[in-house]
Amino acid sequence: MVDRAPVLIVQKYGGTSVGSIDRMKNVAARCIASQRQGHQVAVVVSAMSGETNRLLELTRQLHEDPNDREVDVIISTGEQVSVGLVALAIRAAGGKARSFLGHQCKIVTDSSFARARIVSIDSQPIKDALAAGEIAVIAGFQGVDEKGNITTLGRGGSDTTGVAIAAALKADVCEIYTDVDGVYTTDPNVVPTARKIDRISYEEMLELASLGAKVLQIRSVELGMKYGVRIHVRSSFSDVEGTWVVPEETSMEKVVVSGVTASRDEAKITLEDLPDSPGIAARVFAGLAESNISVDMIVQNQGYDGTTDLTFTVPKGDRKRSIAILTEKVPDLVGKEGERVSFDDEICKVSVVGVGMRSHAGVAKTMFELLS
Amino acid sequence: MVDRAPVLIVQKYGGTSVGSIDRMKNVAARCIASQRQGHQVAVVVSAMSGETNRLLELTRQLHEDPNDREVDVIISTGEQVSVGLVALAIRAAGGKARSFLGHQCKIVTDSSFARARIVSIDSQPIKDALAAGEIAVIAGFQGVDEKGNITTLGRGGSDTTGVAIAAALKADVCEIYTDVDGVYTTDPNVVPTARKIDRISYEEMLELASLGAKVLQIRSVELGMKYGVRIHVRSSFSDVEGTWVVPEETSMEKVVVSGVTASRDEAKITLEDLPDSPGIAARVFAGLAESNISVDMIVQNQGYDGTTDLTFTVPKGDRKRSIAILTEKVPDLVGKEGERVSFDDEICKVSVVGVGMRSHAGVAKTMFELLS
Repeated sequence: MVDRAPVLIVQKYGGTSVGSIDRMKNVAARCIASQRQGHQVAVVVSAMSGETNRLLELTRQLHEDPNDREVDVIISTGEQVSVGLVALAIRAAGGKARSFLGHQCKIVTDSSFARARIVSIDSQPIKDALAAGEIAVIAGFQGVDEKGNITTLGRGGSDTTGVAIAAALKADVCEIYTDVDGVYTTDPNVVPTARKIDRISYEEMLELASLGAKVLQIRSVELGMKYGVRIHVRSSFSDVEGTWVVPEETSMEKVVVSGVTASRDEAKITLEDLPDSPGIAARVFAGLAESNISVDMIVQNQGYDGTTDLTFTVPKGDRKRSIAILTEKVPDLVGKEGERVSFDDEICKVSVVGVGMRSHAGVAKTMFELLS
Repeated sequence: MVDRAPVLIVQKYGGTSVGSIDRMKNVAARCIASQRQGHQVAVVVSAMSGETNRLLELTRQLHEDPNDREVDVIISTGEQVSVGLVALAIRAAGGKARSFLGHQCKIVTDSSFARARIVSIDSQPIKDALAAGEIAVIAGFQGVDEKGNITTLGRGGSDTTGVAIAAALKADVCEIYTDVDGVYTTDPNVVPTARKIDRISYEEMLELASLGAKVLQIRSVELGMKYGVRIHVRSSFSDVEGTWVVPEETSMEKVVVSGVTASRDEAKITLEDLPDSPGIAARVFAGLAESNISVDMIVQNQGYDGTTDLTFTVPKGDRKRSIAILTEKVPDLVGKEGERVSFDDEICKVSVVGVGMRSHAGVAKTMFELLS
């Protein structure tokens, strides 16, 4: 799938891939192998698996809110230990390496602790290291704000760091190493016939990610799309080609459906016999919006008697709170629980994703035939 | 012992004092208590006890030499976690706090990884925090070189950070909190009648430290002497006054002997029947010096037959190597081991320290009477 041999590769390894000294040696061997093929290699690494949770647990004994300057100071050490150890592992295997922390790269973010967004990267120190024949080992997940406070990018932030570094270096590819060998048409643990996708557009990948595919963070795909970074999702435990996430191309339109996702994380709430008049739906959703409850799918069924039914889904964890809010805020509409409001936790949202659906009829028909 | 109420206090807490979340809460309570007395408080903390060794053990699985850029990246995280947690503990107890890392303070060092020396400190960010009513929580043991590489100051480096920060802030006192309640005339575990010293000069403290007293690092005392920082060594588990390390004063001359130390870490080597001619001793010690073996005490005993005996001490761990070097380099002088060279590992060096000895006779007599 590669058009030409890349000359500058960014490789990102997750917590499982660097979960032990032995696995770090495996990462080191992969980095050195890429370099010996003539490439320049920059590596972005996560904390060793379990480490971020261990550190968060320490903070929780003193402090409830994870969105805090000091919590970021503490949990960013997970990646700091990883980059040092991976750099040592590369040297132990005969390579040259140098680690970079967020304040050394320099990855500048805003000051939203625990969920910071990258503002700029000064990639010159990394370029200097690469030019000197070193493998640059960069801490994922972390940055500094303009005042030098340490920030973190939120869970999965190392993917974002990987793609951002690739964009800043104008890398030929950003390889995201994980414990599966690519992006699948649907969850292979649920559907045994799920197929690995060879090539997918940013737009389709965004849809899959927002619908529950966990292999790649949404923000990293958005960043890839914005800067045109070619992303290659692949396994750190094998050498097979994974999934390329790339700009949409004409030839791709042939593929009608790229993927199917299923989410069991939502609950359905139904309000019956609402007056069918303007402003009613707005009143229903206002209270939920104020409480930051994310309403996903909404279906309205017109009745014959001037009333209407309203059905919508919310995250399963917010179902109880949603009903409490509705009975408190709009008692005239919903009555008490069990009167005109009912719910169902046992639902499954199935999503079908594909750029080709724009111009292909019959997708829904096929889907419902399959589901039945 | 305090002449006036201090207004700016630097407190340094070692690994035992911050060894658990509960102990950090104790540190937080002490900091807040000092602040509520009207003082400005900056705290320097070490890594939680055991943490630096845990991190070093990880590096040893990949790398033998601890004097390495990446090892410093890794082990400096111990203090980073501590400052974040202590800052959270202070806030949990109702105080205001902000943590500072070496690259934020900014503690600039040379580039000697694992044993860096402090070049300068930009204390403005700390002063700003103090002026805002915050307790500044500063990572001990770490700095950055001019290029922004993370460095560490060597074992016990947090004492050095404490005194250096106190010097930079022109603090009224640097309190070194430890698990004993001060500096003793000799090791209280060996001599039950050992007395706590109330007040000692930098010079005497340096002597005690260089002779084996472990309560305060030599470098921190040197730094205190250079910048006139008043150091108060005391227990983090009680409120009693500890030991003040301060400039030498005339009134102190009354105290003849400040302390007695004993070192069992040396071995005695004796060379018999050497020719009593110039240059012989130089030849003996040249080979040892080349191999960086530190010769401590030297005693020469004149014989009656134109020969001389030479006795000296070396670190016990270097005794075997010393004899190997001597038999190889100056075989004409020493013969084989057991011929004219002999050794004794079962010795104890006793040192008596005190400014007053300059002008008081009879100290040696008293000492030998006690020893016998």
